Amino acid sequence: MRVAILAHEKFPDRAKTALGVLRYADYDAVAVLDRETAGQRVNDFVSDVQDAPIYESMADLEADAVDALLIGIAPIGGGFEESWREDVRTALEGGCDIISGLHYFLAEDEEFTQLAAENDCELRDVRKPSDDLTVSQGIADEVDAEVILTVGTDCSVGKMTVSMELARDAREAGYDAAVIPTGQTGIMIEGWGNPIDRVVSDFTAGAVEEMILEKGDEHDYLFVEGQGSIVHPAYSAVTCGILHGSMADKLVLCHDAGREAIHGYESFSLPDLPTYVDLYENLAAPVAGSEIVAGALNTSNLEDDEAREAVDAYADAIDVPATDVVRFDSETVLDALL
Amino acid sequence: MRVAILAHEKFPDRAKTALGVLRYADYDAVAVLDRETAGQRVNDFVSDVQDAPIYESMADLEADAVDALLIGIAPIGGGFEESWREDVRTALEGGCDIISGLHYFLAEDEEFTQLAAENDCELRDVRKPSDDLTVSQGIADEVDAEVILTVGTDCSVGKMTVSMELARDAREAGYDAAVIPTGQTGIMIEGWGNPIDRVVSDFTAGAVEEMILEKGDEHDYLFVEGQGSIVHPAYSAVTCGILHGSMADKLVLCHDAGREAIHGYESFSLPDLPTYVDLYENLAAPVAGSEIVAGALNTSNLEDDEAREAVDAYADAIDVPATDVVRFDSETVLDALL
Repeated sequence: MRVAILAHEKFPDRAKTALGVLRYADYDAVAVLDRETAGQRVNDFVSDVQDAPIYESMADLEADAVDALLIGIAPIGGGFEESWREDVRTALEGGCDIISGLHYFLAEDEEFTQLAAENDCELRDVRKPSDDLTVSQGIADEVDAEVILTVGTDCSVGKMTVSMELARDAREAGYDAAVIPTGQTGIMIEGWGNPIDRVVSDFTAGAVEEMILEKGDEHDYLFVEGQGSIVHPAYSAVTCGILHGSMADKLVLCHDAGREAIHGYESFSLPDLPTYVDLYENLAAPVAGSEIVAGALNTSNLEDDEAREAVDAYADAIDVPATDVVRFDSETVLDALL
Repeated sequence: MRVAILAHEKFPDRAKTALGVLRYADYDAVAVLDRETAGQRVNDFVSDVQDAPIYESMADLEADAVDALLIGIAPIGGGFEESWREDVRTALEGGCDIISGLHYFLAEDEEFTQLAAENDCELRDVRKPSDDLTVSQGIADEVDAEVILTVGTDCSVGKMTVSMELARDAREAGYDAAVIPTGQTGIMIEGWGNPIDRVVSDFTAGAVEEMILEKGDEHDYLFVEGQGSIVHPAYSAVTCGILHGSMADKLVLCHDAGREAIHGYESFSLPDLPTYVDLYENLAAPVAGSEIVAGALNTSNLEDDEAREAVDAYADAIDVPATDVVRFDSETVLDALL
């Protein structure tokens, strides 16, 4: 599928979804839309992802060059920016589907619904939960696959990236590994999945279990994308539901080097690293024997020599092999997991 | 407000909501509807709650004797039983409001909506979350009130009852105490509240915080009704969200004497009692310094002499004062809490 990726005024640093899709998805990216960086190319900014030209708007593209317009950014709150409307309109008029992970559902927008019907296009709101989700049965451990969950010391420490990188490295090493996506970017990359942070709270664990039951006998390893952190003042419910719903065999503890307080909730200090290991394992224990067997440290803020030292110190602190999956190889971590 | 309470074929033992309302709510209960026990009275079955005659249907009541029909039972799954339709229809035609905590929203039922409009009645679906809920800010501890949360070893161990009893006993002892209701029965009793198990999972903590911020400067003590259990394979997300969202000062650990496995998930054994104390306190610690300072044991399955022994053993196991709030007095427990 050929996609254009909307990322106005935020590419590349504040366009997490766009970058995730360029890095990990199977889509053929024919363009990024960003009126600020238009005229340049993706690889002018980020070298290790799929390249594409950057345009100012959908109007700069041939109508039949694109199958879908993908919304690759999200403002705080997940609303729809009216300055994007012209691009969505042009895409629909040209027969493109729209893929969006916004909290604002495009399929509930009157103009878009009408244009989609007229032009036989699909409005795919990936953050809209399926209607048939329900409570967990507590049976995710019955699948054949080994279930590996990324857990974090905070939000935005790289859990999605770690899940994607480890699954890719495992596949390249010859293992049959798949990703279980739980958030909007993961769902866009994989093309399916339940948006766990948007389901009814009673169904949090059940929505994870349902995906594991669906894929668990088709693969040998499932890398479940974690969300939030078990000590997050706002999002710990989602984290806890994924931990118990997945009944994971193994956990990878993800951390951002230098992070000392909860992002956006700076009055809450992060506990020390061994406390996280105990918290996740002790909370998992009555439901599943999940153990933290590897660590992943995001060292993107550090120089190369500091990064290696930081990874070593991190591995020592949590007493398992660790790496930065983007910067270094994942061999020792995969050895611990597979 | 004068209410009739629908409890067909389930009164009293399987009518938790009906009994909760009869026991704790300020409503004037003019009738219970139960076609199986019709002709008897509430106090023929349960002596320590508000008495009312039991009728076969709404048709047996004078139209102007009732202000609202309250649905006092819930089938598994929370659906609407078609055998109740005639009673709801009769109530609406007689000008009564309907109060329901079902997952099935009466306000989305075409016939009920039309009848309600024609007769100027309200359809109150208490399990329908408000549209303006959002994520927690992590500030519930800023209110003046001391926040006391009931937490459990499992579902259905009596958390709602304990919250109601302790708040009532505290008020009778002269303290200014209120209940923060989080489930359908609590909401029906109190007449307001957010149904935490039905909110968007990302808003679990936020929906609790919102209530505490609303009431926290009006009272000296808030008794927050807990839900589920932190080790429940399906519902732990809700429990975790309430723990962190409430930022409780003190916790009351609730348990059902003799319970050894998760209700309905019998392959999951309950951890031992001191493990619960550690789990709840350690999980709370990075967000709030919540401590388990009292215990509540449901001894309804035991004889009197066994019950006293069980409560003493329970207090020993969790190393704090304990009682059965229904069977015994709550003095030592209140001393620890207030």
